Amino acid sequence: MDSINKLSELFKEFPGIGPRQAKRFVYYLLSRNNGYLENLSKLVTELKREIKNCPSCFRFFPNDAAKSPLCSVCRDSNRDSSSLMIVARDVDFEAIEKSHSYSGFYFVLGGTVPILEKEPEKKIRVKELAARVKARAAEGLKEIIIATSVNPEGENTHDFIVTLLSPIIKQSGIKLSGLGRGLSTGTELEYSDSDTIKNALKNRS
Amino acid sequence: MDSINKLSELFKEFPGIGPRQAKRFVYYLLSRNNGYLENLSKLVTELKREIKNCPSCFRFFPNDAAKSPLCSVCRDSNRDSSSLMIVARDVDFEAIEKSHSYSGFYFVLGGTVPILEKEPEKKIRVKELAARVKARAAEGLKEIIIATSVNPEGENTHDFIVTLLSPIIKQSGIKLSGLGRGLSTGTELEYSDSDTIKNALKNRS
Amino acid sequence: MDSINKLSELFKEFPGIGPRQAKRFVYYLLSRNNGYLENLSKLVTELKREIKNCPSCFRFFPNDAAKSPLCSVCRDSNRDSSSLMIVARDVDFEAIEKSHSYSGFYFVLGGTVPILEKEPEKKIRVKELAARVKARAAEGLKEIIIATSVNPEGENTHDFIVTLLSPIIKQSGIKLSGLGRGLSTGTELEYSDSDTIKNALKNRS
Amino acid sequence: MDSINKLSELFKEFPGIGPRQAKRFVYYLLSRNNGYLENLSKLVTELKREIKNCPSCFRFFPNDAAKSPLCSVCRDSNRDSSSLMIVARDVDFEAIEKSHSYSGFYFVLGGTVPILEKEPEKKIRVKELAARVKARAAEGLKEIIIATSVNPEGENTHDFIVTLLSPIIKQSGIKLSGLGRGLSTGTELEYSDSDTIKNALKNRS
Repeated sequence: MDSINKLSELFKEFPGIGPRQAKRFVYYLLSRNNGYLENLSKLVTELKREIKNCPSCFRFFPNDAAKSPLCSVCRDSNRDSSSLMIVARDVDFEAIEKSHSYSGFYFVLGGTVPILEKEPEKKIRVKELAARVKARAAEGLKEIIIATSVNPEGENTHDFIVTLLSPIIKQSGIKLSGLGRGLSTGTELEYSDSDTIKNALKNRS
Repeated sequence: MDSINKLSELFKEFPGIGPRQAKRFVYYLLSRNNGYLENLSKLVTELKREIKNCPSCFRFFPNDAAKSPLCSVCRDSNRDSSSLMIVARDVDFEAIEKSHSYSGFYFVLGGTVPILEKEPEKKIRVKELAARVKARAAEGLKEIIIATSVNPEGENTHDFIVTLLSPIIKQSGIKLSGLGRGLSTGTELEYSDSDTIKNALKNRS
Repeated sequence: MDSINKLSELFKEFPGIGPRQAKRFVYYLLSRNNGYLENLSKLVTELKREIKNCPSCFRFFPNDAAKSPLCSVCRDSNRDSSSLMIVARDVDFEAIEKSHSYSGFYFVLGGTVPILEKEPEKKIRVKELAARVKARAAEGLKEIIIATSVNPEGENTHDFIVTLLSPIIKQSGIKLSGLGRGLSTGTELEYSDSDTIKNALKNRS
Repeated sequence: MDSINKLSELFKEFPGIGPRQAKRFVYYLLSRNNGYLENLSKLVTELKREIKNCPSCFRFFPNDAAKSPLCSVCRDSNRDSSSLMIVARDVDFEAIEKSHSYSGFYFVLGGTVPILEKEPEKKIRVKELAARVKARAAEGLKEIIIATSVNPEGENTHDFIVTLLSPIIKQSGIKLSGLGRGLSTGTELEYSDSDTIKNALKNRS
C-alpha cells in the first residue's frame, strides 16, 4: 500500500470520516506546502507530551507555566468545592464552561455506557469516579450533578452512575441530581414528545 | 385556467406545499375513484358546519351528542379550574393533551405575535384572552401557564402576553408562569447552547 | 370519528403526507373562510367532469372550447407523427413539454412496473400501449422513445416495454430508443458512479 | 494557544471540517495510543517524499519499484496515445479510472477556474496544459476530452480550456470534446431540468 492509501486508512478512523473524505484529506495535504505538513506532524507528535490528563477530573489540559499536575479548574481555589459535575467527555465539559453557569468541579468519564454493556469499567472510569467521590465527600461535597445527554446511551450512563454512587454516598447527605428536562432552545411545542412536555410542565416557572 | 391548475393553486396555499406537490395532489385525485372525491368534497363543505369554535377556549371541536355550546374540555367539571394554559394553536393543545400531564383549562390564541408586529390583535385573540382571564379570575383561577414554543416568535408571544396580563391580574394573586426550559428528549449536551445548559442546571433535580 | 379526523384520514392518503401534516391541513381549512372551502369542494367535485383522459395518449386534459375527444397534443397536426414517447406519468409529460425539446406524440403508462411484479397490466396500460403502437405503426411511426427515470423501477419498466414492443415492431423498421445517459445538471464527476461515467464518455461530443 | 487549539486550527483548514469537528479530531487523537500518533505523524512528514507529482499528467503518484519519473499511467505503453482527458483533480482521475471505461492519457489541472477569475493561471496549470497538448499533438493525439463537472465552475473551466486550446489545435485535426450530458444514475425525469432533458433526448440510443 502506498503513502496515499496508508494515510487514508488512518484518516478513515477519525470520528465521522468515510473513505472518500479520508482520501480528500490526503490530496489536501499534498496540495499544502512543507511548512504546513511539518507543523501538523510536529503537533501530532507533541500532542501527548504537551497535553496531560488531570489526575483529579481526568480531562485533558495543556502543560502550562504553572507546571501544576492538576488542570486549571481543579487547582482553582475559587471554585465551589461543594459541587461535582460528572460529564461523559471533554467536549461536554467545554459546552458547560462556555455557558458560564457552573462554578463547581468536574469529573470526565471518558465515554458512555451502552445499553446492556457487560463491562462498563472498560467504557468509563468507574473505579476512578468512586475514588474521587469518596475523596471529595471528605472535603465538603454536597451535590453531584450527573450531566449526560438525553438519549438512550446517555440515560443508561446516568442510571449506571446513580446505581454506582448511591451506596457510596448513603448517609453522607450528598445530593445526587441530573440536568433539568424541559423545552430546549428551538423546541416547538407541536413537535415535542410527551416526556418533554411533562418535564416542561413540572419545571415551569 | 383549467381545473387542474385552479385546484393546484388552492393546494399551493396549504401549509408547506409548493407548486410541484400541489400538482401531484391534483393528479393523485384524478387517479382516485368518484367515491373518494365526493367524500373529500363533502367533508370539506361540511367541515365548518360540523366543527365549532368553543366560545370559552376557542379551540375547534366537533358538534356531538351533548349538543353543548362548549367543547368537551371546557364543559368537563372534573378539570382543575385553578389553572389556565395559553397555547398558540389547536395542534399545541393536542400535543399537551396527548402528554396526559395537564388537567386544567386552555385558551387558544389562534396564532403567534411576530417580532415588531404593530397590530397583535390581528394575529391572536387579544380581547378574548383578557376577557377570559378576568372571568376565570372570579372563578378561582390561581395560575396562568403560557405554553409557547422556544423560538423568536414564540418567545415574543410569551412576552406580549405577560405585558398584556400583568396589569389585569395585579393584586389578584394569580401566578403567571412559562413552560420549563432544559434538555429535551434527544438533546446532546455537546451541541446544546449556553441558554439551554443554564436552564438545565437551574432546573436540575 | 369526527369531521376533523375523517378529513385527516383522507389527506393522509395524499402522496407524501403523514398524519401530522394531514391534521395541519384540516386546521388550515378551519382557519379559511367559507368561500375558499366552497371553491375547493366544488373544484374537487368537478375535477373528473372537467378533466378527461385522452383516449389516444391517456394523459389528463381539460375539456375546452375545441370540444375534441382528443387532448391538445394528440389533435395537433403540426406535431411530428414519426415519433412516440412513452412516459410513466402526467408529471413526466409536463417536464418534457417544459423543456421544448420534443415535438412528437406521447403515451402515458399511468405508472411504473415494480421489480418482480407478477401482474404488470395492473400497474401500467399494457394492452392500450400495444394497441396504440400498432395503430401508429400504420401511420408512419419511425421511432419509439422510452422515457423512464434512471432508478430500479424506471429501468425495470424500460426493460418490460422493450420486451413487450420488440415482437410488435419487428420487421417494421421502427426504432426503439431510451433517453441518453450522461452527466445531468449539477453532477460532480468525483461523486459519479461508474455507469454514469461510462455513458458520459460514450455520449461525449 | 495550547496544543489542543493549535492542532484544531490546522484541522479546521481540512476540506469540509468546521471548528467543532476539528476539536473532536484532537480529542480523538488524545484517546489513541502513541503508536497511532507516531504513525500518523510519520506518514504526514513522509507524504511529499513518498509521493511525486508526475511531470507529464501532474497527478500525484507513489514512488515505486519502477523508480520512473513518470506515473504508472503515463509510462504505460499499452494506453491509447490518441486520446487525452483533462480533469480538474486527482479524485476525478480516480473516479474515471474506477469506471474502467477510458484507456487514454490524462492531464490534471489541479483545480477549476471560478467565474470572473482574473488570473486563471493561479488556479489551474495553464502553461503546462498548453505545453502538454503541443507535445502530444506531435505524438499522434486525435482527441482531447474535457471532463469537468456540470456546475457553474466546472462549465466555466470547460469554456476556458476550449478558448485556450482552440488556437493551439487549429488545423491539427485534433477533436475537442466534453463528457456527454443526459440522465445520470438516480435521476428522476419529473425533477429533471430542461437542459438535462434536452441533452437526454439528443443523446438517446
